[in-house]
Amino acid sequence: MPKINADRLLGDLYALRAIGVYKTGVHRPTYSADDMLAREWFACRAREAGLEPETDGIGNVICRSAASGPKLLLGSHLETQPYAGWLDGAMGVIYGLEVARALGHGIEVGAWADEEGHFGNFLGSHSFVRGTDDAEIARAINRHDGTKLPDALAQAGLTGRPRARLDPARYRGYLEAHIEQGDELDSTGLKLGIVTSIVGIWQYSIRFEGVQNHAGTTRMAIRKDAGVALMELGQAIKTRFPQVAGKRSVWTTGRILLNPGAASIVPGGAEMLFQFRDADPAILQAMENALQALVAEANAGPCKVTLTNLSRSTPKLMDAGFQAALERAAERTAPGAHIRIPSGAGHDAQIFAEQLPSAMLFVPSIGGISHHWTEDTKDEDIVLGCQALADAAAEILAA
Amino acid sequence: MPKINADRLLGDLYALRAIGVYKTGVHRPTYSADDMLAREWFACRAREAGLEPETDGIGNVICRSAASGPKLLLGSHLETQPYAGWLDGAMGVIYGLEVARALGHGIEVGAWADEEGHFGNFLGSHSFVRGTDDAEIARAINRHDGTKLPDALAQAGLTGRPRARLDPARYRGYLEAHIEQGDELDSTGLKLGIVTSIVGIWQYSIRFEGVQNHAGTTRMAIRKDAGVALMELGQAIKTRFPQVAGKRSVWTTGRILLNPGAASIVPGGAEMLFQFRDADPAILQAMENALQALVAEANAGPCKVTLTNLSRSTPKLMDAGFQAALERAAERTAPGAHIRIPSGAGHDAQIFAEQLPSAMLFVPSIGGISHHWTEDTKDEDIVLGCQALADAAAEILAA
Repeated sequence: MPKINADRLLGDLYALRAIGVYKTGVHRPTYSADDMLAREWFACRAREAGLEPETDGIGNVICRSAASGPKLLLGSHLETQPYAGWLDGAMGVIYGLEVARALGHGIEVGAWADEEGHFGNFLGSHSFVRGTDDAEIARAINRHDGTKLPDALAQAGLTGRPRARLDPARYRGYLEAHIEQGDELDSTGLKLGIVTSIVGIWQYSIRFEGVQNHAGTTRMAIRKDAGVALMELGQAIKTRFPQVAGKRSVWTTGRILLNPGAASIVPGGAEMLFQFRDADPAILQAMENALQALVAEANAGPCKVTLTNLSRSTPKLMDAGFQAALERAAERTAPGAHIRIPSGAGHDAQIFAEQLPSAMLFVPSIGGISHHWTEDTKDEDIVLGCQALADAAAEILAA
Repeated sequence: MPKINADRLLGDLYALRAIGVYKTGVHRPTYSADDMLAREWFACRAREAGLEPETDGIGNVICRSAASGPKLLLGSHLETQPYAGWLDGAMGVIYGLEVARALGHGIEVGAWADEEGHFGNFLGSHSFVRGTDDAEIARAINRHDGTKLPDALAQAGLTGRPRARLDPARYRGYLEAHIEQGDELDSTGLKLGIVTSIVGIWQYSIRFEGVQNHAGTTRMAIRKDAGVALMELGQAIKTRFPQVAGKRSVWTTGRILLNPGAASIVPGGAEMLFQFRDADPAILQAMENALQALVAEANAGPCKVTLTNLSRSTPKLMDAGFQAALERAAERTAPGAHIRIPSGAGHDAQIFAEQLPSAMLFVPSIGGISHHWTEDTKDEDIVLGCQALADAAAEILAA
C-alpha cells in the first residue's frame, strides 16, 4: 500500500492557510488576489511533483500526468466562503497532490473554480464537465458585491484563456475528499465517512401579500399583516416537517424580508427563502407536498401566500464500487471507525458524477462547524484521511 | 355660531395638494423643496387672512394675531410621509386657517415641522413646546437617507433663524383636527371623533442569538436557529397578546432581520422590532409583562433571547372641558353621528398637552387608509369637521 508523507501533507496545508489568513481561518473569495495566488502556488507545487498544471479560462487548475496507464482524477476547490475555514476545499486539493506524490503515477488533480458559488453554482466543474459559453458567463454576477464575472475574470488575468473540458475516457473516475461540515463523525468519535450520495436541494420563495397600514390606527381585527402570516407559516413548518421528513432531512429559512420593514408600519408584504435537503427523491417530494399543503392552509388567512419553486436538484448517488473501495481502505486505516453517510452539502463530485464514476470521503469537522473561520480538523485526522484516500486510489487504479 | 366657507376651505386644500402631488396623494418629506414651498404658500395665505406668520429656525410656521383678547392655538403639520395622503396634517393646518378666517379673532395657527418624524420625534412641536438646542439638532439624521439635520436646515434656508417658543399664558389651549387614520368612523357611518387620549407607544428590540451554521450539514437536532426562534416567538405573541390586551390595543412586528440572511446558512442571529399601543397605562404594563414572560419561555429553547425596551411613551389624556366643547359642537353639526375615541397614532397635540389644555377632533378616513397616497376623506366630511371645530373654538373663546 502507498504510504503518504504526513509532514509534506500538513506542511502544504499550513502554507496554503497563510494565503488570505484570517484569524485561524482564511478569506479567499473566488478570483480575489489571494485566491489567484493560492492557484499559482498550487500549480507550482504540482509542477514540483511532476504534474503538468494548466490554469484554464474559468480559473480551474488541472494538473495532468504525462505517464501512460490508467488514471484517476482527484480534486476539490481552493477558494473559500468569506472569512471561512482553512480546510473546506483546500484539504481535498492537497490530498490529491499528496496522493499523486505517494502513488507516483496515475493520479491527476484539479482545483475547481468557485465551488463556493460566489458567482454561480459549481462554476468551474460545471464548465469542465458540462461546458459553458460566453453568454452564460456574461450573465453571472458576484452575489456579494455585484461584480460581473467577465470583469472578475479579466481582473484575475484569465481573459482569453481556453476553457478546459473533461475527457471522460481518460479517467476511471473521480474522487474527492472533504471535511464533513456536520458533526456526525465528531460526535461519535468516528474517523472516516464514505459518502453514499449528495443530497438534492429544493429551494423556494414564499411571498405573503397583505395590506400595508398604520401600526397605531389599524385595529387588529382588520389587519392583513404579511409578517404575522409569515411567522405563522414558519411555526407551522416547524411543527409539520418532522412528521414527513426523513431521518437526515434538513430544512432552513435562510432569509426573511418585511416590506416596508419600519417599526410603525403594518407590513404589507413579506418574503421568506426556504429550502430542504434529502438524499431520497421520495422524501423530497413528501416535503414539497407538505409545504404546498401548509401554504394552502395559510391562504385561508387574511394574506395571499404564493409558493414559488426556485430550484430542485436531484440527489446524486456515489459509485457503488468506489464506495466499496473507500470502505475497505477505511477499514485498513481506521478499523471500525468509519460509516457510510450522505452529504448534506453540495460538492463538485455531484457534477463529475454526471460523467464519471465518482465518490467522496469525509474526515471529521470539530464541533460540526463549517463556513466559519473556527472550522477545524485534528492534524492526525487529516493525515489518516489522506492515507485512506491513497489506499482506495491505489486499489481502484490496480483493479 | 361662526359659519365656515366650504369653498374657501376646499380650495385651499386642493391648492396645497398640488405642491408635491403624487397620484392622488402627495410626497412632501420634511425640508424638501416641496415641503418648504408648502410652508411659504401657507404663510402667504395666513398673511392674506390678517395673521402674522413667522417661520422659525426649525421650520415651524407660527401665524399670530395682533388682536387683543383670549386666544386659542390651532395647528397640525404640512410635511407628509413618503408618497402619502393629501390630508394627513395638511387638513388640520388649513382647518386652523379657515377657523381663524371664520371667527375673525382669537385664533392663531401653527404648522409644526416634521411631525412625521423624518428626523426625530415631533421635531417642531418638541422645539416649540419644550425647547431644543444645537447639540440635539446636530445629532439628528434623516432616517431615510442619512442627511444630517443641520445640513437639511441649511438647504432649506433656515440656518440662523431663531427657534420660537410657546408662551403658555398666551393661549386658552390647543386644538388639532386630523383624519382618523383608522376605520372606526368610516365603518360605522359616523362623522366625527372626539379624541379622549393619545395612546402610549412602547417599543422593543428582541434579539435572538443562535449558532450560524451550514444549512446542509447541520442536523436539525443540534441547530440553534435564530430565525426559527424568532418565528416561534412571533406566533406565541399572536396567541397570547389577545388574552392580555385591551379592546383597542394594537401590537406590531414592523421589522425582522436574519443574520447573515442567506439561503443556505442557518441564521445565527435575528432581530425583530416590536411595539404595542394603548391609552391605558395598566394595559401597557400588562402587555409588557406578557412579553417578558414570552421571552423568558423562549429562553428555554436553544437560542438566547434578549428583550430591550427602546421607548415607553405615556398616554396623554385630552382636556375634559375641551372634549365636552367638541362634543357639543359635534352634536350641533352632526347630531348623533359622533363618538369619543382614543388616537392610536401620535400627534403634535400630545406634546402641546404637556403645557396647554389640548384636544383633538377626527374626521373619517375612507377605508381607514393612511400613510399611503390612496388616503382620502369625502369633501362633505371635510367641511363638516371644520364647521364643528369652528363651533367648538368659538365656544371655548367665549367661555
